[in-house]
Amino acid sequence: MRIDEIGGEFGLIERVRDTHAASGGNGLVLGIGDDAAVVSLNSFEQAVVTTDMLVERVHFRRDWSDPYSIGWKAAAVNLSDVAAMGAVPTFAFLSLGLTPSETVENVDRLYDGFMDCLNRYGARLAGGDTNASPDAMVISVTQMGIVQANRALTRTGARIGDTLLVTGTLGDSAGGLALLTTLGLGKAEKLDKDLVNAHRRPQPRVVAARAAAGTGKVHAAMDISDGIVGDLKKICAASGVGARLECGLLPLSNSLIRAAQALKRDPVDIALSGGEDYELLLAVAPDDVDEVTAAIADVGTRVTAIGEVVKSGMRILSANSVDEMNPDAHGWNHFAK
Amino acid sequence: MRIDEIGGEFGLIERVRDTHAASGGNGLVLGIGDDAAVVSLNSFEQAVVTTDMLVERVHFRRDWSDPYSIGWKAAAVNLSDVAAMGAVPTFAFLSLGLTPSETVENVDRLYDGFMDCLNRYGARLAGGDTNASPDAMVISVTQMGIVQANRALTRTGARIGDTLLVTGTLGDSAGGLALLTTLGLGKAEKLDKDLVNAHRRPQPRVVAARAAAGTGKVHAAMDISDGIVGDLKKICAASGVGARLECGLLPLSNSLIRAAQALKRDPVDIALSGGEDYELLLAVAPDDVDEVTAAIADVGTRVTAIGEVVKSGMRILSANSVDEMNPDAHGWNHFAK
Repeated sequence: MRIDEIGGEFGLIERVRDTHAASGGNGLVLGIGDDAAVVSLNSFEQAVVTTDMLVERVHFRRDWSDPYSIGWKAAAVNLSDVAAMGAVPTFAFLSLGLTPSETVENVDRLYDGFMDCLNRYGARLAGGDTNASPDAMVISVTQMGIVQANRALTRTGARIGDTLLVTGTLGDSAGGLALLTTLGLGKAEKLDKDLVNAHRRPQPRVVAARAAAGTGKVHAAMDISDGIVGDLKKICAASGVGARLECGLLPLSNSLIRAAQALKRDPVDIALSGGEDYELLLAVAPDDVDEVTAAIADVGTRVTAIGEVVKSGMRILSANSVDEMNPDAHGWNHFAK
Repeated sequence: MRIDEIGGEFGLIERVRDTHAASGGNGLVLGIGDDAAVVSLNSFEQAVVTTDMLVERVHFRRDWSDPYSIGWKAAAVNLSDVAAMGAVPTFAFLSLGLTPSETVENVDRLYDGFMDCLNRYGARLAGGDTNASPDAMVISVTQMGIVQANRALTRTGARIGDTLLVTGTLGDSAGGLALLTTLGLGKAEKLDKDLVNAHRRPQPRVVAARAAAGTGKVHAAMDISDGIVGDLKKICAASGVGARLECGLLPLSNSLIRAAQALKRDPVDIALSGGEDYELLLAVAPDDVDEVTAAIADVGTRVTAIGEVVKSGMRILSANSVDEMNPDAHGWNHFAK
C-alpha cells in the first residue's frame, strides 16, 4: 500500500499516534498531535520538545537557498513549534547528513545561520550528530523549551464562538516560492527579495507567542506551517469544533499582492494554500480579543481576526461573503497526490 | 575545503563544539562532547538528551536489513547513548524521511522494530516528524533519559591507574558486516545469523549500565560505537589521560573467531577497528573492579578487563605483549579518506 493511500503524511502520523505513541502519564503531559510534546520537569515547570527534519530537494533547494539561510530556517521552523506552545526556547540539537561533496565553508555558513537564529531567540546548541548522506543534505533538529506548568498553549482548547487570530501576514513564503519556481532565483530576488526571504529565512513568532500566552486568555494555538486552511482543520479536529474563515479578512502583504499580479494568480489563493508561514493561529474568546491583540501588538507584531470557531464543519467565505470554497483543495501534505 | 581535510566527522564536531556550542550554565550541565547532553530538571534529577541520524546506504542497506531491524537499530543506538550516561530512558522522538516508493507495510514494520526496542528498555514514543526524502530513507531519533543529579556517567573522569572494562564481546557487529559485504545476505546468514543480527539488531546495555552506575564507582563511561580503539581515544582525550590496551584480553565470541577464519581475517583486528558494538567501555579504580564487575554480571552481562589508563599516549599491545600496533589505523570516521 502506498503512503498516499492512507492520507499521506497526516494519515501516517494518525496511524502512529493511534498505534504506538504514548498518550500521557509517567511524566508525559502531552504526546503526539500538537506542535510539541510536553514533559513534566518539576511542580512548576514543564519542558516542550519538538523535532523537525528538513531534506534537500523537498524542503529546500541549494540553488535557491544559500547555506546560511538553510541553517537559519532549520532553527526557525523548530523555534516556531516551541513558540506555538507558548514556551521559552532553551536547548537545540542539530543533526546533519552531509553529501561527500560538501565543503567546510558551506557547513560553517549553515551553522552561522542556525546559531544566529538560535541566538536571536535565546536558544543554545547543546548537542547533535554529524553523518554522511549519499546524495541529499538532511538536517534534523530537536528543540526544547520551557513553560510554566499547565500553561502550554495547545491545539485542543478552541471553543465555539472563539475569534480566530493570526499574526503577521499570510502567503508571503508561498509567494516567494512561487516567484522562485516561476522566475528562478535572479529574477525572483529582483522582483521582490522580501518575499523570497520570507520563504528562505522565516521569523519564528517566539516573542509574540510569549506575549499572547502571558495574558492567560489563549484557548488554543498552533503555528501555521502547512497553510492556514490545512492547519485550521487540524486545530478544529484537535478541539472537536469547526471554523468559518473569511478570505476578505486575510492579512496580505503589499509584496504578495504585487507578486500575485506579476504571476497572474489570486493572492488570497496563495495565502490559503501556501505553507511555511510560521505565523501563529490563535483561538480567543471575543471578550478577550482586545487584550490578546494589544499584548501581541505591544511587541511589534501585527495581529488580525480572520474568522470564528463554529460547532462543526469548515467554511471558507470568499471576499464578497457569498461564494464558499472547497477546503479540501488547500494545504500541504507530504506523499499526497 | 573538504570535510576530510579538517579530520572528517570528529574534526567537524570539535569545530562546532569550539565555535558554537553552549558549554554549560543556565540549565545546561553538559554540552557537546559526550554520549548525550545533560540538562538540569530539578534539584534531584537531570535529563540526558541524545540524537542520532541513520541514513540509508551509509548506516544500513535495505537489501541486508529488513524494516523491522532498521527500526530496532534506530532505537538501540540512541538508547545505547542514554545507557552510557547511566540514565533511565524516558521519551523518544522519531523523525522519518521516506522515499516516494516507500510502502505503508514497510513503515509499519519499521515502527514495530522501533517500538519493540523502546518497550524492552522502558522508553516511550512522545513525538516525531514525517517527511518525504528524494532517494534515501533517513531516520533521526532523539532519546531522552533521566538520571539522579550529578550521577551521570561521563567521558571525563578516567584516572591514571584505572582498569578499563568492556561489556559483552567486541567485533561481532563488524564481523557480521564483513560477512554481509563478502558473502551477501543469504550466505552470511547461513554461516552465522548471530553475527549478522549483532550488526542489524544491537542490544543497548541499558540495564548493565544502570547496574554499573548504581555502584557509584565508575569514573568514566561511554558506549563503543566507532570501534574500541577509536572510542578509547575519545575517552582518553576527554579525561586528559592515555591508555594501554591488551589485545590478548579482548573478549571475542566464538562466532567471530569462526567467521574470521572463514574470511581469512584476524578476529582481533576486526574487534579493534570494527564499529557498532554498542557495548560499554568503563574506567574503574582497581580496588572497585570486583564490585562493578559483580554488579554487571548480576544482570547477566559479561564484563572483561582489557587494559589500563596511563598518563598519556595510546599503546595497543598484541597478544604476545611484544608488538605494538598503530592506533591511528583503527576506528570509524565519516568523511575521512
